[in-house]
Amino acid sequence: MEKVMLNQIQNQVATVNNYGREEFEAPTNITIKGILRLLMANVDSDNGKRVISLGLGDPTASSCFSAPAVAQQAVVDALCSNKFNGYPPTVGLPQTRIAIAGYLSRDLPHELSPDDVYVTAGCTPAIEMTLSILAQPGSNILLPRPGFPIYGLCANFRNIEARYFDLLPDKSWEVDLDAVEALADHNTVAIVIINPGNPCGNVYSYQHLKKIAEVAQKLNIVIIADEVYGHLAFGTNPFVPMGVFGSIAPVFTLGSLSKRWLVPGWRLGWFVMNDPTGIFKNPKFIERVKKYCDICGDPATFIQAAVPHIIEQTKEAFFTKTLKMLKQTSDICYEMIKEIPCISCPHKPQGSMTMMVKVNLSLLEDITDDIEFCFKLAKEESLILMPGLAVGLKNWLRITFATDPTSLEEGLGRLKSFCQRHSKK
Amino acid sequence: MEKVMLNQIQNQVATVNNYGREEFEAPTNITIKGILRLLMANVDSDNGKRVISLGLGDPTASSCFSAPAVAQQAVVDALCSNKFNGYPPTVGLPQTRIAIAGYLSRDLPHELSPDDVYVTAGCTPAIEMTLSILAQPGSNILLPRPGFPIYGLCANFRNIEARYFDLLPDKSWEVDLDAVEALADHNTVAIVIINPGNPCGNVYSYQHLKKIAEVAQKLNIVIIADEVYGHLAFGTNPFVPMGVFGSIAPVFTLGSLSKRWLVPGWRLGWFVMNDPTGIFKNPKFIERVKKYCDICGDPATFIQAAVPHIIEQTKEAFFTKTLKMLKQTSDICYEMIKEIPCISCPHKPQGSMTMMVKVNLSLLEDITDDIEFCFKLAKEESLILMPGLAVGLKNWLRITFATDPTSLEEGLGRLKSFCQRHSKK
Repeated sequence: MEKVMLNQIQNQVATVNNYGREEFEAPTNITIKGILRLLMANVDSDNGKRVISLGLGDPTASSCFSAPAVAQQAVVDALCSNKFNGYPPTVGLPQTRIAIAGYLSRDLPHELSPDDVYVTAGCTPAIEMTLSILAQPGSNILLPRPGFPIYGLCANFRNIEARYFDLLPDKSWEVDLDAVEALADHNTVAIVIINPGNPCGNVYSYQHLKKIAEVAQKLNIVIIADEVYGHLAFGTNPFVPMGVFGSIAPVFTLGSLSKRWLVPGWRLGWFVMNDPTGIFKNPKFIERVKKYCDICGDPATFIQAAVPHIIEQTKEAFFTKTLKMLKQTSDICYEMIKEIPCISCPHKPQGSMTMMVKVNLSLLEDITDDIEFCFKLAKEESLILMPGLAVGLKNWLRITFATDPTSLEEGLGRLKSFCQRHSKK
Repeated sequence: MEKVMLNQIQNQVATVNNYGREEFEAPTNITIKGILRLLMANVDSDNGKRVISLGLGDPTASSCFSAPAVAQQAVVDALCSNKFNGYPPTVGLPQTRIAIAGYLSRDLPHELSPDDVYVTAGCTPAIEMTLSILAQPGSNILLPRPGFPIYGLCANFRNIEARYFDLLPDKSWEVDLDAVEALADHNTVAIVIINPGNPCGNVYSYQHLKKIAEVAQKLNIVIIADEVYGHLAFGTNPFVPMGVFGSIAPVFTLGSLSKRWLVPGWRLGWFVMNDPTGIFKNPKFIERVKKYCDICGDPATFIQAAVPHIIEQTKEAFFTKTLKMLKQTSDICYEMIKEIPCISCPHKPQGSMTMMVKVNLSLLEDITDDIEFCFKLAKEESLILMPGLAVGLKNWLRITFATDPTSLEEGLGRLKSFCQRHSKK
């Protein structure tokens, strides 16, 4: 059984390091949730250890990361008002679009219009929508490696060629801008920037974001700014929304309540056109976006109706507490990883909920790659980590540190003993 | 302004009566919600009349059609348990899939497995998902005319050719099965059957559904059974799910809580494989479905968690009351239409929430088609009806009768005076 799944994944990702069409078949054949399904199925329930998952960026399993009570109350009130059982406008409720436009405009040099905001059932459908509306015959898109595999999967479903540029571990996971310029051609429609970074936990500086925007301007492409981890920055660099540079290059900002409000299960996200110069504001494109909204799933109307209250009434103290927790757990992770000889972390996380660590396979005697590493780890230690290949980086691991310190310490303890057990003597 | 919108729509639907590629550009360029946006914008707020919309199949605006209290409580309880703020499995929560499988199996000769059920954010994303997973280069799909324009729009986005077969008004809107056989070729992947019928309000007999299944078997295509109005049958024919004939031809059943539970805004639907002979149950196809779920939006986890209670605890009396209301309002509609010389209804509605009526333009002096009819009606009477062309039938109207009798009578009264005012003297 394990062998079958191993081969299955290894075949799926076999071509990850080639360029061209083959390359993007790798991540498109894989999703984080798909691999998690296989890893969980590989846990040996007889080993007496409770399952600890540091695999998925969903902090809600831990009591340290629970939603603000005011947000929950706002949803209950909206539901019980009986005013929001009907269909929402497919672009989103007007009051929801107004609230999100206002919320995002706080950090922008320009004021977003509610018409720039399209409400989606979480951030994933916002990704799917963005790629679908940009898709043209022969078009290609530039994706970060490591990155978030949903982009490759969507590109594959929509017949867009995905081309991968590297994020540089020794430069705080900054974008290899030379590679970006080399990859782009006249069929390139967009570049995806995930900041704060998933999976790397990096937070880009104002200067680096500006450089990215200038390259996008030069290449005449739109920037898809995945800011689902927006504001979750606890290091030296503050979070700067890519929309700040919307006048240099048009920016489609994707976000949601999921991470900052700790409610990924509420499925409330947004697609926002940060396009102050109006490059994309032609009636034909807007009509295409609206029509796409007509075929997409919406968030529940009563959840949309609660958004204005959720944004107004959530106290700063709630966000501060979350950042403090993430700082603490990422520090624990970083320090404990230092104690494991065959694993190294090139960059201390400054944001989001995940980090990337490198596995030195030459120090291990019976493990051939990160996939086998994670499957054996799941079986022997009931510990779930994400193989790096799932996010485009072979023989690395993605660790989610957004969980309670106790589970994190226990999990990393198991990781350490696993590595010791498999180390060359 | 009005003229612009008129031309806009008329151009969009200009080719609706041709066959081939051109044809399906008509409905794909149109959505019911898109036209409603334009019609509402055309209402003259100075005419002192409150807007009455008989345009959208959303009954929740009327107090006669309100959600069951037990359903609302189940959602509140799930939310307040704080157990369902995290991501759901993208295929749906296990308990939700079990509950839906059990609910649908009540009316089937075979038992559905929870694995046959994929939970979606309403029925529209289930449509989108179905067409996306069936899409292949060069493939085509058979759609009913009149029908639900989202199918054509999705087909267009996914590069599937839509081919339209007629529903026959003089035969209770039954499928023209000869036309179906004539349209199909080896690239045909599926046929869409909407029962109870939107927009026609028909309910197909057991015999007719069986014939459809036999034709699908002969053509070796899958049946997409849109049963979003499932169980909303108040005439002589009982509702028979197409899944009953799943052993003749595989059936993908699409449904939701929206209509029967009167909660379209909760966005809880399903894609179900009624495939007892296992034609589609190969690992590759299932993997494709699961991956598609990974890129789609899900319903909120806590709404999914409420589904088992909603299905168990909703009393039969609630459903009976809804059917009684729909019978009453459809009768009002049918009788009042009889009193309007230039409008006729070929088939008394037996189900769903909508009916189709024909406009005899030869009796009107200054109206050239159904689009102009609806735009003038919106402007002069603040009454919203759906032009038939939006659902594929030029110079017909779609009327939604799922509203309170008072508004319905007032609305149809305005329709009558509008027709009198525009009749040839």
